[in-house]
Amino acid sequence: MRLIVLGSGAGGGIPQWNANNPRSREAFANDPLTPRRTQASIAVSSDGDHWLLLNASPDLRQQIIATPALHPKGPALRHSPIAAVMLTGADVDQVAGLLTLRERQPFTLYASTRVQKALAANPIFNVLSPDKVQRKILPLGQEVQAIPGLKVWAFPAPGKVALYMEDETKAALGTEEGDTVATLIEDVITGRSVVFAPSCATVAEDILTLASSAHCLLFDGTFFTEEEMLATGEGTKTAARMGHVPMSGEKGSMNAFMNITDTRKLYIHINNTNPASRRGTPEELQIRRAGWELAEDGMEIVL
Amino acid sequence: MRLIVLGSGAGGGIPQWNANNPRSREAFANDPLTPRRTQASIAVSSDGDHWLLLNASPDLRQQIIATPALHPKGPALRHSPIAAVMLTGADVDQVAGLLTLRERQPFTLYASTRVQKALAANPIFNVLSPDKVQRKILPLGQEVQAIPGLKVWAFPAPGKVALYMEDETKAALGTEEGDTVATLIEDVITGRSVVFAPSCATVAEDILTLASSAHCLLFDGTFFTEEEMLATGEGTKTAARMGHVPMSGEKGSMNAFMNITDTRKLYIHINNTNPASRRGTPEELQIRRAGWELAEDGMEIVL
Repeated sequence: MRLIVLGSGAGGGIPQWNANNPRSREAFANDPLTPRRTQASIAVSSDGDHWLLLNASPDLRQQIIATPALHPKGPALRHSPIAAVMLTGADVDQVAGLLTLRERQPFTLYASTRVQKALAANPIFNVLSPDKVQRKILPLGQEVQAIPGLKVWAFPAPGKVALYMEDETKAALGTEEGDTVATLIEDVITGRSVVFAPSCATVAEDILTLASSAHCLLFDGTFFTEEEMLATGEGTKTAARMGHVPMSGEKGSMNAFMNITDTRKLYIHINNTNPASRRGTPEELQIRRAGWELAEDGMEIVL
Repeated sequence: MRLIVLGSGAGGGIPQWNANNPRSREAFANDPLTPRRTQASIAVSSDGDHWLLLNASPDLRQQIIATPALHPKGPALRHSPIAAVMLTGADVDQVAGLLTLRERQPFTLYASTRVQKALAANPIFNVLSPDKVQRKILPLGQEVQAIPGLKVWAFPAPGKVALYMEDETKAALGTEEGDTVATLIEDVITGRSVVFAPSCATVAEDILTLASSAHCLLFDGTFFTEEEMLATGEGTKTAARMGHVPMSGEKGSMNAFMNITDTRKLYIHINNTNPASRRGTPEELQIRRAGWELAEDGMEIVL
């Protein structure tokens, strides 16, 4: 199985278009210690000819151009190695790239009932012609043969409904099961597997079990601390309110996954407020000492 | 007045993600004779501190990062020199970049009644909080002070409704006035002006009059010939069906603007099927001999 990190940043990326915070300033200035990060997405393949995208980030056109494995192959005038796209939520940083995938190219679009409903409520996604793009419900807890050589199980992840669908009059902002999912992707020939969970609000038993049986884990690396947005003065919401478990702290992900040592562990969906996104910071050293890596744009992982 | 070409390509850009045509192949391969083009948008400023974007292309995040004039300035944690965005239509290549402009940044969003209606029909654009982003109707034929130092007149341009809103049961696919507009932008201090018309299906008297009085014209350069998509085998629609007048031919734009010689004339919104998008082709030489330039990404024009 080959896995390419198309983007490793959280919503907005690093730099974020309107952010003057240290990480964005450094990234605007091309400081090599703060690598630029487009918004999170990965591409996975068993045979190298058919690729499954996990999430369609707003940066998708730039990401495809930067990734030769995803360029069209001849001789047909229209072609793409992208055979399917699977969404783990309906937030802008997970779905906006679907608009890049217009131009009458056939592929299969997998998403939970809730996420398909969010797409259907926005007629702009009709640029994906129904005679070319098949929208399929991603069933939770059932195996799906997503593309040749890869099977996927999606399972509900603790999280919240997309920002533009939040309803403050409802409990949990109107969040329902399936608004956020995590996935286990397995190569049917080699049996190698990866867990992809770019948004996850708490680490429960099910994801620990899956992660310990997988060969690689790509997990929510949005925030280093629970109150990061408040501490930096950049927001009024905690990590939990935004649907993310922080890296650090007693209930943080470093602690939660501490005993999983045989799985390659990487953080993805890294926010521009997260101090670990800069090389050589105490926070980056701390996560490396805890056995984690930080995903970077363009990184290729062979499993 | 300063004008920066953020993107010079038509929908899909050059290269287009799934295209194997000559221009896309060359651009994927970084051939210097076929410069890469992100999707069309320009930024205009009188004072250098406040910028008006014309259209919000899907490539907007990449375009802002590539353009130092649009980077946030300190000391506030959040800032952008982009004070307003004006849309000339509701097609994906004109509006998708609005999703990049989330993150609670104030700006004014100008669009015709028809285009505002298209945005309102897509709740995903609610990521632009109404308490930060003021959506204003762009009146047709009336002067608007869009940002400090710049006034704009928008006028209806011959064209068609956005692709995802086409209704084949209606006359003209359901197109109404205001679905496509062109704009004249004038510096209130210097009186210098530019006409921006990236989509225009026919050249009528009104745009000829405006273009002759302006100092610069950025005009629809989508296609070289009327039947380009059919001739290359890449589509079944004529230029007219897609809402664009071709460069060449008796009714083409080179001919129509022939007698306007005191205005700097540039083509923008250049499609990857257009042979003139490659330097040194007979078609490129022909348009240069006719007094036109091709806009390129990053080009700065001081008027």
